[in-house]
Amino acid sequence: MSYLKNKIINDPIYGFIHIHFDIIWKIIEHPYFQRLRRISQLGLSSLVYPGANHNRFHHAIGAMHLMHKAIETLKSKGHEITEKEHEGALIAILLHDIGHGPFSHALEDSIVNNLSHEKISLMFMNKLNEIFEGKLSIAIKIFTKKYKKQFLHQLISSQLDVDRLDYLNRDSFYSGVNEGIINSNRIISMLNVYKNQLVVDYKGLYSIEKFIIARKLMYWQVYLHKTVLSAEHTLMKVLQRAKKLTQTGFEIFTTPAFKKFLFEKETINDFFFIKHNLLEAFAIIDDYDILTCIKNWVHEDDKVLRILSKTIINRKLFKIQSVNEEELHEKLSIIQKRASKKLKIFDNNLDYLVFPIKIKNEIYNFKENEIKFLNKKNTLIRLSEIKKEFSVNTENSNIIKHYICCPEDCIN
Amino acid sequence: MSYLKNKIINDPIYGFIHIHFDIIWKIIEHPYFQRLRRISQLGLSSLVYPGANHNRFHHAIGAMHLMHKAIETLKSKGHEITEKEHEGALIAILLHDIGHGPFSHALEDSIVNNLSHEKISLMFMNKLNEIFEGKLSIAIKIFTKKYKKQFLHQLISSQLDVDRLDYLNRDSFYSGVNEGIINSNRIISMLNVYKNQLVVDYKGLYSIEKFIIARKLMYWQVYLHKTVLSAEHTLMKVLQRAKKLTQTGFEIFTTPAFKKFLFEKETINDFFFIKHNLLEAFAIIDDYDILTCIKNWVHEDDKVLRILSKTIINRKLFKIQSVNEEELHEKLSIIQKRASKKLKIFDNNLDYLVFPIKIKNEIYNFKENEIKFLNKKNTLIRLSEIKKEFSVNTENSNIIKHYICCPEDCIN
Amino acid sequence: MSYLKNKIINDPIYGFIHIHFDIIWKIIEHPYFQRLRRISQLGLSSLVYPGANHNRFHHAIGAMHLMHKAIETLKSKGHEITEKEHEGALIAILLHDIGHGPFSHALEDSIVNNLSHEKISLMFMNKLNEIFEGKLSIAIKIFTKKYKKQFLHQLISSQLDVDRLDYLNRDSFYSGVNEGIINSNRIISMLNVYKNQLVVDYKGLYSIEKFIIARKLMYWQVYLHKTVLSAEHTLMKVLQRAKKLTQTGFEIFTTPAFKKFLFEKETINDFFFIKHNLLEAFAIIDDYDILTCIKNWVHEDDKVLRILSKTIINRKLFKIQSVNEEELHEKLSIIQKRASKKLKIFDNNLDYLVFPIKIKNEIYNFKENEIKFLNKKNTLIRLSEIKKEFSVNTENSNIIKHYICCPEDCIN
Amino acid sequence: MSYLKNKIINDPIYGFIHIHFDIIWKIIEHPYFQRLRRISQLGLSSLVYPGANHNRFHHAIGAMHLMHKAIETLKSKGHEITEKEHEGALIAILLHDIGHGPFSHALEDSIVNNLSHEKISLMFMNKLNEIFEGKLSIAIKIFTKKYKKQFLHQLISSQLDVDRLDYLNRDSFYSGVNEGIINSNRIISMLNVYKNQLVVDYKGLYSIEKFIIARKLMYWQVYLHKTVLSAEHTLMKVLQRAKKLTQTGFEIFTTPAFKKFLFEKETINDFFFIKHNLLEAFAIIDDYDILTCIKNWVHEDDKVLRILSKTIINRKLFKIQSVNEEELHEKLSIIQKRASKKLKIFDNNLDYLVFPIKIKNEIYNFKENEIKFLNKKNTLIRLSEIKKEFSVNTENSNIIKHYICCPEDCIN
Repeated sequence: MSYLKNKIINDPIYGFIHIHFDIIWKIIEHPYFQRLRRISQLGLSSLVYPGANHNRFHHAIGAMHLMHKAIETLKSKGHEITEKEHEGALIAILLHDIGHGPFSHALEDSIVNNLSHEKISLMFMNKLNEIFEGKLSIAIKIFTKKYKKQFLHQLISSQLDVDRLDYLNRDSFYSGVNEGIINSNRIISMLNVYKNQLVVDYKGLYSIEKFIIARKLMYWQVYLHKTVLSAEHTLMKVLQRAKKLTQTGFEIFTTPAFKKFLFEKETINDFFFIKHNLLEAFAIIDDYDILTCIKNWVHEDDKVLRILSKTIINRKLFKIQSVNEEELHEKLSIIQKRASKKLKIFDNNLDYLVFPIKIKNEIYNFKENEIKFLNKKNTLIRLSEIKKEFSVNTENSNIIKHYICCPEDCIN
Repeated sequence: MSYLKNKIINDPIYGFIHIHFDIIWKIIEHPYFQRLRRISQLGLSSLVYPGANHNRFHHAIGAMHLMHKAIETLKSKGHEITEKEHEGALIAILLHDIGHGPFSHALEDSIVNNLSHEKISLMFMNKLNEIFEGKLSIAIKIFTKKYKKQFLHQLISSQLDVDRLDYLNRDSFYSGVNEGIINSNRIISMLNVYKNQLVVDYKGLYSIEKFIIARKLMYWQVYLHKTVLSAEHTLMKVLQRAKKLTQTGFEIFTTPAFKKFLFEKETINDFFFIKHNLLEAFAIIDDYDILTCIKNWVHEDDKVLRILSKTIINRKLFKIQSVNEEELHEKLSIIQKRASKKLKIFDNNLDYLVFPIKIKNEIYNFKENEIKFLNKKNTLIRLSEIKKEFSVNTENSNIIKHYICCPEDCIN
Repeated sequence: MSYLKNKIINDPIYGFIHIHFDIIWKIIEHPYFQRLRRISQLGLSSLVYPGANHNRFHHAIGAMHLMHKAIETLKSKGHEITEKEHEGALIAILLHDIGHGPFSHALEDSIVNNLSHEKISLMFMNKLNEIFEGKLSIAIKIFTKKYKKQFLHQLISSQLDVDRLDYLNRDSFYSGVNEGIINSNRIISMLNVYKNQLVVDYKGLYSIEKFIIARKLMYWQVYLHKTVLSAEHTLMKVLQRAKKLTQTGFEIFTTPAFKKFLFEKETINDFFFIKHNLLEAFAIIDDYDILTCIKNWVHEDDKVLRILSKTIINRKLFKIQSVNEEELHEKLSIIQKRASKKLKIFDNNLDYLVFPIKIKNEIYNFKENEIKFLNKKNTLIRLSEIKKEFSVNTENSNIIKHYICCPEDCIN
Repeated sequence: MSYLKNKIINDPIYGFIHIHFDIIWKIIEHPYFQRLRRISQLGLSSLVYPGANHNRFHHAIGAMHLMHKAIETLKSKGHEITEKEHEGALIAILLHDIGHGPFSHALEDSIVNNLSHEKISLMFMNKLNEIFEGKLSIAIKIFTKKYKKQFLHQLISSQLDVDRLDYLNRDSFYSGVNEGIINSNRIISMLNVYKNQLVVDYKGLYSIEKFIIARKLMYWQVYLHKTVLSAEHTLMKVLQRAKKLTQTGFEIFTTPAFKKFLFEKETINDFFFIKHNLLEAFAIIDDYDILTCIKNWVHEDDKVLRILSKTIINRKLFKIQSVNEEELHEKLSIIQKRASKKLKIFDNNLDYLVFPIKIKNEIYNFKENEIKFLNKKNTLIRLSEIKKEFSVNTENSNIIKHYICCPEDCIN
């Protein structure tokens, strides 16, 4: 596999990333993909971990780099992967997250309801496939799980995919939480294929254990860090409030690009998206629109919107406290009453300022699509079968937690 | 020195950064300082080094961390530094760059003319000194070189200051250009004071050599990288064009915060700033305003503004070529003619699309404010006196280069 | 706490290690301590991990460095630790392993029977206490658990001591098995004292989890790596064989220093050691004696000794296979028969060439001396009480494995 | 290029090193090569940098790894390198240092006079070529500069060879002197071939500059560190003294392997080596023989030998001071007189205890075999032609220094 001359991307984690196919370079240069430079990878986590300002552009390219290494490894172990399949797999991982909106998940739960980023990713891929005259066809099949070589899809999306391998190291690197560092080189060198399934050579057991634990620790220390939860959910509330205001006729500041989404009266779902051919509009909104809006909403008439916006811009984040499920409603009601008195906010409006957060976190799914090991006798072992050897156990692999979030002076 | 309980900032470079004074925490929490989260440290360098998305917030705190270490070192070597001076020095370095506008230098050379960020930093410090009732007085004296212990100022601003120590490592870390990595721990442990001057213990010679070379390499590989120069100067041209248009009566998109600066008819300099009490206005503009504007200018009527804006948003950067000073004018004129024909742009408007760039880079100033070494016999040696031992020589320490920048299809 | 001027030790893991007390420097300079330069930290692990050539000298100093940091942390949290206690704790950790013989554990199980390195460490400490006129008295009390401030002893020896904190990172660093890397800075910053016990602030939960998992992974990947086990146990067999030969009147090569131990007819245990005042003799044997002997034993008359010695010198290691306890004896007997035929070695002599290995590994002791967390309400929680939160579970925390080790051509 | 299954060597610097040819694995397993595990890479530098215990085994394999990467790079740039040449180049670099004796250079200047390690390396290669039936023929041609593709030899031995690329990083890593860290990946990716010569792509300019500076800094901070010089030269004196004693009929301790060299009456040079077919004898001496001898010489009758040996074993190193060439003889004579009085050592014997050290260090050779750059117009530029761009200048590239070394109490 030779390199495209001069097509090198610098990465603080892997050093140089070489680009191996002409079409890959063209996709990277396309404005759809360049937009990812303006979508942060970890949303508002940087309010807690100030180093974590990396974006989806870089993650997508890093994941592609690991995919290339994985494919080289599988080929060196004698598995046939054609040039076109190789290219397709790289494209598929490169574009797997292209459908993410500003601040990644915030928009999904406020403005663009019921329309997952995976669906939008696929729309972008189809559009790019038109532009590049069918060159993304295999990539799309791999992405949508329709390609015969299933293991290629598993490299993109499974409990041990290159997406996770990249983001764990990348998020650790930028946040400085080094509990998430994994040995992706070692893991990749242990990958194998058996009966069309992605598997791991048995001696990679401990590396996989480390990988699962590292992911768990990153969830608790970064992705589900209490202060991060507070910031991210407040961001959703800001957007929900803004939407509510525009729906009821208020005029508030917006950037031209975001206007289409914010002031739209219809529900912005799957159906709506296609009907109005919204892809081009979506392709130009990014974190800059959202943050510019929120900066300006600090001065809007609506008190709720003002409070929420200031919270984020000046980083005076809402307090968040852990509660048991049983006591949730009672505590919520007490705090809302207190908030109502202090802030002179009433009724439904209170729900924007004092709200519950529920999180679910599954460390490892012991029931479906398990990680499988290939031992020396060429038989497959599912991770759950050897969980005794492991530090990951079934009982605590699925965790649900409840919190209440509210302005600082409303907490007892 | 004890720590403020629970006041810890995570840093991927130094690990934990402890906050040692109550006033420091209050300054960090102030919106003026929080704004630095939205000012990138390296401007558009991330278009070349995608990892380099770090901001001035993080750099300021990192530099403060090194200042603390430097002060601890000097105290352990027997030099008296009082609690108040310690606090003052930390504040001074924390705020040394607070006057930076969006994209750091771009604004200085386009909208806010003739008003350095150092001057604005001082305005912010004075304002914060009012807010915090005089607690920044020593910091301001140190910053403005009026404090008796000169070495404290030298730690903030000299050829070997903690600002440089932090940014070299930080910019290396995030860009992945590891040529800039220095051993800041070792350098700081070699710092000393002699007759009120900051000096280096003689055995730190090689660490200093490495530091100077590392800085030089970062200049050529990052700060003055050709493609970065193209992007940064195009950004200035965008802003200059936008200003030109507003001055001649055009209405173009702007964010409310930036409007005050973009549509102002008077020259925005030192004098103007004070007259209109512009600090509050300045305190709310950041990278998000500028990039949101540029994203929208892609659709403006003015062709020049459109071309320039697209260049940045879609990362179709102008080509840049190195030229000799002698041939500069002739080449420029040839390319401008070609551009005029191709783009149908005429006269003065061409200067926005085909323009020269001149850079100066001084590796080390051998004439003023030299780095000084303290040998075992307690005598001072200026770096220039031992330059034979060094790899830094006078002849090549001052470099001037010329380039021409233009749209890709206008180059021969 | 000021530094001893110019007393700095370079460490690739921590950077500079400062020496804080005059007596510490003197102990380091003493030949007893300098001997540790010639005792490898990981014995024959370097036959598997070629980078792992670090020695006990460096580990002891590293652990002392972490002890200093731990003490500084505890002091900053308001716990009183006097200058003398500080010094004592540093000395105690510095010398905790000084009683290790060549290749650490190999001698304990072959030549010096029934005499643990801890006991010999204590003898060295007592001797040094004489030499330095009582300056080690507090250190000895801390080491032997007789000092009132129990937490100081716990920092030296417990399930979360600075010994472990150093060796995990150090062994990872040198072996290149980065699964063992832990964030010792973070862990130390979470240490606290409650009712005279060493505890961990509750928010350090995930760092502790990572630490326990990292230790487990290092056990399986390095300390108990199959090939390492083979090498280490063969080394014991070499020494046992040599001892056997000398006991039955054979003359074999030995270095003068090792002669005293190898040719001694009495059992070399606790009692013997004191009776013959063997400390000085012990203080001059190191890895160099053992390896020089083995190099020469390659040419001795005794076939068993020759085979074993070549195994190590030329790194033609014995094969090792995992077996169930039930099948152990049968398999052993089969392989011994095969070996007897192939190698013409008979009867008891076979036990040197075909032998079982039994290992026990306790990841974490859930019953005694548990790691304790201090929550915000100032109550203590033992790790076992929150094991649901953890990835460490009781069932698999205690593991026993069986192997058979034999020459390559004797395995089926 | 596929891998040999399961043939992987762990390296803390590069991660996994794969073995690509069967013959390579066989050479590594040969006792000649395994001996390198017992030859330290940096001799007694570990007395100054306690982490620097790495050995020649590991360096040789590391350099081979970089050679493989360099060859892959050159092939990807279109230069033909056959499978056999590839294999040959890997073997040549793997064995380039196999002729090193114990403590690398110490023996060359004391016992084995006038016989460079390069010559002995070649003898080993020839011997291995016999053993492996001609499979090393190309490797030997490359090593001895007789192979047509000159650039392959240049990769092994030139001012920019993979030997240097490995040892700079490796010595930095283990010593903790991170001034020597270079970006070997980047440098290798810039290598090219032009008219049969190894060249560097022009844009690699700054990486090469950093490489040269890094090497210089490692020389001053590690290889020629004053205390290291003292230790290394004292080691030579120990060996010279021991040789002197054996030549004049004294019986002193020696290991059997070293006896042949130490007690030999003839001069041990090139001629002698071949006449007596000494390769097998040489192949079994290593650091363990030398240090075991010195440990025992601490108790020999000869006072000079005793003093020198203790110096090393107990790390009570001789003091070393820098002197001008002009004052050298006078100062030496004064110190020798003082030493004579204090130590009761007379006449020629004094030369073992008070002696001059002269070192030469050439940072970069501007006259011969220069590093060459290939610019975009496909013309070659020698580094000296663009030295203005560089921080390396002719005047200070060749440095000579003088020292005097003597027991501590003999210095003024």
